[in-house]
Amino acid sequence: MSAEFSFTLNANDGAARTGVITTPRGEIKTPAFMPVGTAGTVKAMLPEYVRATGADIVLGNTYHLMLRPTAERVASLGGLHKFMNWPHPILTDSGGFQVMSLSKLRKLTEEGVSFQSHIDGSRHMLTPERSIEIQCLLGSDIQMQLDECPAIPIAHEDSRISMLLSARWAQRSKDAFEKLSNPGQALFGIIQGANYEGLRRDSLERLLEIEFSGYAVGGLAVGEGREEMFRVLEFTTPYMPKTKPRYLMGVGKPADLVGAVARGVDMFDCVAPTRSGRHGQAWTKAGAINIKNAQFSDDAEPLDPNSECPASRDYSKAYLHHLFRAGEYLGPMLLTWHNLQYYQDLMVEMREAVAAGQFGEFKRRFQAATGEAIV
Amino acid sequence: MSAEFSFTLNANDGAARTGVITTPRGEIKTPAFMPVGTAGTVKAMLPEYVRATGADIVLGNTYHLMLRPTAERVASLGGLHKFMNWPHPILTDSGGFQVMSLSKLRKLTEEGVSFQSHIDGSRHMLTPERSIEIQCLLGSDIQMQLDECPAIPIAHEDSRISMLLSARWAQRSKDAFEKLSNPGQALFGIIQGANYEGLRRDSLERLLEIEFSGYAVGGLAVGEGREEMFRVLEFTTPYMPKTKPRYLMGVGKPADLVGAVARGVDMFDCVAPTRSGRHGQAWTKAGAINIKNAQFSDDAEPLDPNSECPASRDYSKAYLHHLFRAGEYLGPMLLTWHNLQYYQDLMVEMREAVAAGQFGEFKRRFQAATGEAIV
Repeated sequence: MSAEFSFTLNANDGAARTGVITTPRGEIKTPAFMPVGTAGTVKAMLPEYVRATGADIVLGNTYHLMLRPTAERVASLGGLHKFMNWPHPILTDSGGFQVMSLSKLRKLTEEGVSFQSHIDGSRHMLTPERSIEIQCLLGSDIQMQLDECPAIPIAHEDSRISMLLSARWAQRSKDAFEKLSNPGQALFGIIQGANYEGLRRDSLERLLEIEFSGYAVGGLAVGEGREEMFRVLEFTTPYMPKTKPRYLMGVGKPADLVGAVARGVDMFDCVAPTRSGRHGQAWTKAGAINIKNAQFSDDAEPLDPNSECPASRDYSKAYLHHLFRAGEYLGPMLLTWHNLQYYQDLMVEMREAVAAGQFGEFKRRFQAATGEAIV
Repeated sequence: MSAEFSFTLNANDGAARTGVITTPRGEIKTPAFMPVGTAGTVKAMLPEYVRATGADIVLGNTYHLMLRPTAERVASLGGLHKFMNWPHPILTDSGGFQVMSLSKLRKLTEEGVSFQSHIDGSRHMLTPERSIEIQCLLGSDIQMQLDECPAIPIAHEDSRISMLLSARWAQRSKDAFEKLSNPGQALFGIIQGANYEGLRRDSLERLLEIEFSGYAVGGLAVGEGREEMFRVLEFTTPYMPKTKPRYLMGVGKPADLVGAVARGVDMFDCVAPTRSGRHGQAWTKAGAINIKNAQFSDDAEPLDPNSECPASRDYSKAYLHHLFRAGEYLGPMLLTWHNLQYYQDLMVEMREAVAAGQFGEFKRRFQAATGEAIV
């Protein structure tokens, strides 16, 4: 395995692309879905089963890990890969998004963001430099710049000010990364600018000047709705470098993924399959179902008799229904597993469809099967 | 595989024995520990991992299953083995013990016990006949007679009255079993009589007259303490048939198992490894530890580096500590798995020690390593 980070594009079909990201810890086939391993574990999953679903990479949350068990402790225990028994690639976010959504008494300045831990009230400061230092202590393969991620709607001027701050933080993140990182690690910049085309273009140009190994679209999936998100992608991805991975952060549901791949996105992460699984929601080829509904109490069929995933194939819906009704651990375990398999199978289908030049046909089939209006 | 239920004794060492129970669904090596699968799942475990620990058989709880999802529903879905994706042997209890400990407004009569569900308040009646009917609907391989299981201490006369009721219920259970069961299924009788030698002997003689495929010692591990439990075993097991399996119900901690095997017991079940695992307690070769203790926050060593069990070998104590502190599912999942592996490894060691005529030596080593005074 090479010690270099690289991206190879293998095929295009319209705006949709398929390729491979190479890292020292292994390859990531794109379009890729990254299961979220918030606190050093993809919730309710054994890591070997995450791998078995076909996941090439998982995401770790800097905010959670810096507070508990702390980045220094993870480093002293040999890094995040060893800590969580996942020897494959890991992407870490910058921590910024969750500081703003989870912490208390936060204060944003040019320097960074100071905040109080939601766990024990302790005080912390997250700067671009500290975020990169933490991500390097964790040892992640793909790291993200610190950015500010405001919700939509936001006034144009407020969005511009925020985007410019993120751009300055991008430069400071890059400078810190060049000092602290190891060969083969990669840093991605994050395009901000809400749903303003001019700001998105301006943001991207500033990032291109700094130069990153990949570019993310941030600040979406923050309440704007699917149609608006797709509209933003349509005036953003065409200008992103063709030779670098494109990552749509925090997205999404299956129809979001299909629509975003159609618009040229390569990478995704989202808590949807794991969180929904813990709450009894299962994605199936015919759309989403809630296994807790009484209609499943006598349903002898598994979620997907043709799947190779034991969670999808070896347990009746009636049994899964029973597990959730009885509050058993195994319910969330099996539904999380099933959902992650569904997501990875979807990525395989999309990669194959793009490679075969049949993505349009795939999209039509997906819409017909799931009843999704907009993809 | 034969359609017959049988027991073959392979070796003795003092009172300790090792052998094999044969059932149509597979063999059970004795001494055997049966993980408890209360509501159709060994909590926080995938069934294939239960199997991988070396478990030949699991226990299902009639009380829980009759209330939810109901025995009739399990039967209509193909039986408990299929329902919980465990094709190997299953033993079910009679439900009596948990009716007395969990249900509300229960009333014991000659006919049986009427009670209110702890789940939804619905009214039910459990008789010897109904208990066997439920166990046959579930399709369990080894079934238990309905009995009354009073706590110790209990007055001699009260114990005698209770034991005689259990003996009459034993006959009714046997009669129902002969009508309802399939070839290869087995029914065990349960010796009662608290800590009174005369009553235990009387109870056993009544059961021998009825004739069962195996005999259980019930009414222990109900508060009497380890020393008293061993004393009761010492005046009970020597009179139990050598050619039939002997099952000590609801026992126990590792030292309980070692001491009971030394006194001629072949089968055990207990929630200890699973329940303790969910609460952060792990058994190790050097005794029990609580992984939540601060001392483990930086401990890079796994629970057992020499184990073949991934849960014991592939995760540091620091990581397990972190999972419990963060309230992650994976903590209970891994510690349950580790504990079940510890229990099954202990059974393997005991079987091998008995077969080699070295059980005394094994017992001394176990005591020295764990610091247990009484085994």
